[in-house]
Amino acid sequence: MSYVHGYSDRETQRLLEQSLILEDLLHEGTRFPSGSRVLEVGCGVGAQTSILARRNPGIHLTSIDISEESVEKAGGLVSELGLKNVTVKQADLFNLGIEKAAFDHIFICFVLEHLKEPTKALRKTKELLAKGGTLTVIEGDHGSGFWTPESIPSRLSWRGLIDSQLNLGHDPNIGRKLYPLLIEAGFEPEYVEPRPVYADRSDPVLLNGVVNKIIVPMVRSAEHQVLEEKMVDQAKWKQGLKDLSAVSSHMEGSFFYTWFKGLTTPNS
Amino acid sequence: MSYVHGYSDRETQRLLEQSLILEDLLHEGTRFPSGSRVLEVGCGVGAQTSILARRNPGIHLTSIDISEESVEKAGGLVSELGLKNVTVKQADLFNLGIEKAAFDHIFICFVLEHLKEPTKALRKTKELLAKGGTLTVIEGDHGSGFWTPESIPSRLSWRGLIDSQLNLGHDPNIGRKLYPLLIEAGFEPEYVEPRPVYADRSDPVLLNGVVNKIIVPMVRSAEHQVLEEKMVDQAKWKQGLKDLSAVSSHMEGSFFYTWFKGLTTPNS
Repeated sequence: MSYVHGYSDRETQRLLEQSLILEDLLHEGTRFPSGSRVLEVGCGVGAQTSILARRNPGIHLTSIDISEESVEKAGGLVSELGLKNVTVKQADLFNLGIEKAAFDHIFICFVLEHLKEPTKALRKTKELLAKGGTLTVIEGDHGSGFWTPESIPSRLSWRGLIDSQLNLGHDPNIGRKLYPLLIEAGFEPEYVEPRPVYADRSDPVLLNGVVNKIIVPMVRSAEHQVLEEKMVDQAKWKQGLKDLSAVSSHMEGSFFYTWFKGLTTPNS
Repeated sequence: MSYVHGYSDRETQRLLEQSLILEDLLHEGTRFPSGSRVLEVGCGVGAQTSILARRNPGIHLTSIDISEESVEKAGGLVSELGLKNVTVKQADLFNLGIEKAAFDHIFICFVLEHLKEPTKALRKTKELLAKGGTLTVIEGDHGSGFWTPESIPSRLSWRGLIDSQLNLGHDPNIGRKLYPLLIEAGFEPEYVEPRPVYADRSDPVLLNGVVNKIIVPMVRSAEHQVLEEKMVDQAKWKQGLKDLSAVSSHMEGSFFYTWFKGLTTPNS
């Protein structure tokens, strides 16, 4: 599967650090009853898996990913943290070998933006949900990002991230479309809402975390594709990453980005 | 004074309707004690004036604006609503003829984005604040706006609004800079935070209100300047406004925009 961010160790580090900085922002409102059978689709290196399992100690969590390499890392993390309520396995959502209605709740985070047919994936999750079950979806929207100081190279490199995802046939701006996607796939959303992060120099630790542990590594992960496809001139690209990183230490620095979170039930 | 939105009756209507849709979003957290002397700087046609006076019935509110025409409208609205605790007058912040430290609280909404020297205005308000007083500032950020479906003309017309404001030497993206501006002007912010509005087809009334009572009229108010300066081709401009308006009735429609609100005290 083509994945804009790649599978490097640096990327694994980004995903783990990012998930802790954003834990309260993204997981607020997600609480599964003890005994629930929960499926996490597209668990990657286990960044959200470990949070889900820790915050919901009574659940039986099954976390799947199509990438063997990611699943191995996720499994390692789960062992390392001593989480007993998680089964991690390599699997394709469309070929799961699990009977219908096998899960009480399904959780998908940062996955639909990397798929060519997100609606198809959502429809599949609907089949897997037991009566009364819920689906929780969290996705970003790269069109929502803005910052100051905003240099031309920093804008170009951000644009490079967006274009490299578009180039794979994926949707970097999927957050704003989450509500209609859920409707199209046959769900009835209880809510779809923005979960924005904003940081400025009043909280240098948060600003540095957002900029240098989430944003810059996320943009950098598209480097290979951006440069290979000549989406941005190499010198401008490097300067853009430098300028983005400097947002965190600039006295005028601020950064804004929003994710979208939806909680929904099947419509029949 | 150059003002991107102009002073037409249609614009007055926009400002009044917008203020009611956004009342809870923007005024939450703004509550002045009974007996306070409050100054509103740049009251325009009185859209926020009437809300401030209604939500804080015990205050003595003085609302000023540099435009004689706007002040007349604001005065008319105040009389019409029977608000007894408001004095509206035409005045220049820099030539007020009021002694220093004359106000307990100052309120500024959608004003700094239309000034060439916002820091200078903020410094002036500092002089007018009594010991222990607060300054509340609310500003938009046009770089924060995004929507779906997103056509090329709709993007161009949005860009036209931004460019027409830049062309006047003003800052359409001031929201993200509110924190450093306040610091530079000698304030200590208690908070600066985004106040986002997001609407989709789950709430067609809100979506229509945001798109057709706030966004489209706001963009349209820049029409004269955009077309005169040929910032956008006339046909594209008209199509852009049409496409933006259609966001509200499209099954996939959604709109996101964020304002920034700061509450602050002088730093000494």
